[in-house]
Amino acid sequence: MIGIVIVSHSHKVAEGVKELADQMAQGQVKIVAAGGVDDHTIGTNAERIHNALLEAQSDDGVLVLLDLGSAVMSAQMAVEMLDADAQGRVKLSEAPLVEGAVIAAVEASIGNTLEQVTAAAEAAATMRKLG
Amino acid sequence: MIGIVIVSHSHKVAEGVKELADQMAQGQVKIVAAGGVDDHTIGTNAERIHNALLEAQSDDGVLVLLDLGSAVMSAQMAVEMLDADAQGRVKLSEAPLVEGAVIAAVEASIGNTLEQVTAAAEAAATMRKLG
Repeated sequence: MIGIVIVSHSHKVAEGVKELADQMAQGQVKIVAAGGVDDHTIGTNAERIHNALLEAQSDDGVLVLLDLGSAVMSAQMAVEMLDADAQGRVKLSEAPLVEGAVIAAVEASIGNTLEQVTAAAEAAATMRKLG
Repeated sequence: MIGIVIVSHSHKVAEGVKELADQMAQGQVKIVAAGGVDDHTIGTNAERIHNALLEAQSDDGVLVLLDLGSAVMSAQMAVEMLDADAQGRVKLSEAPLVEGAVIAAVEASIGNTLEQVTAAAEAAATMRKLG
């Protein structure tokens, strides 16, 4: 089963998204939050994301959901700190953070592959909310 | 200047998104979080959203950003509790919650109209993150 890492500039957002995703996955999926910088101020931190990747990694891969801007650069740095094998099993997602994480959690919990979960999460971007 | 309400099933997500959006708007925009249910468990609550609408409302309108599913129904109930005039100045957004809120905060802070801010936030859904 794949793992999921939640990257946000906000510690609260990352923790809250993990909480939502955990509930959707009914605790079946390893979901790790990596939000904010060490003193809980706004920002992203490659070391913190790296540790989350190590915690979430599995042979089936890890999907990383991100918020904005420098979150991508920090996540890329965090991936580069992994060994080559592990790097090949990490995918950064284009999906919207909250909406994508909830869908990814469900898709991962039913044992879908990293590619399937990635695609499902990205489809969240174009789903209508208001019906 | 328009106001912004952040609705999420998670108290932490709503508070964290408010924090991010406040920073982007440099405190120029009234941004109110309405997340979770009273005891901070996962869920949405129409009364809580209604109070947030009252707090954020302005003659220029209020944009409501939402996460998923029943958040829409709770927000619609919250809007219906407003008087007819105020109802006409509220817009629910299709935008992805975190990404849309950050863009909406910036657009609102420069004095854009409710329609302009709504459109800019919704465009977040199709913005590339990974470049």
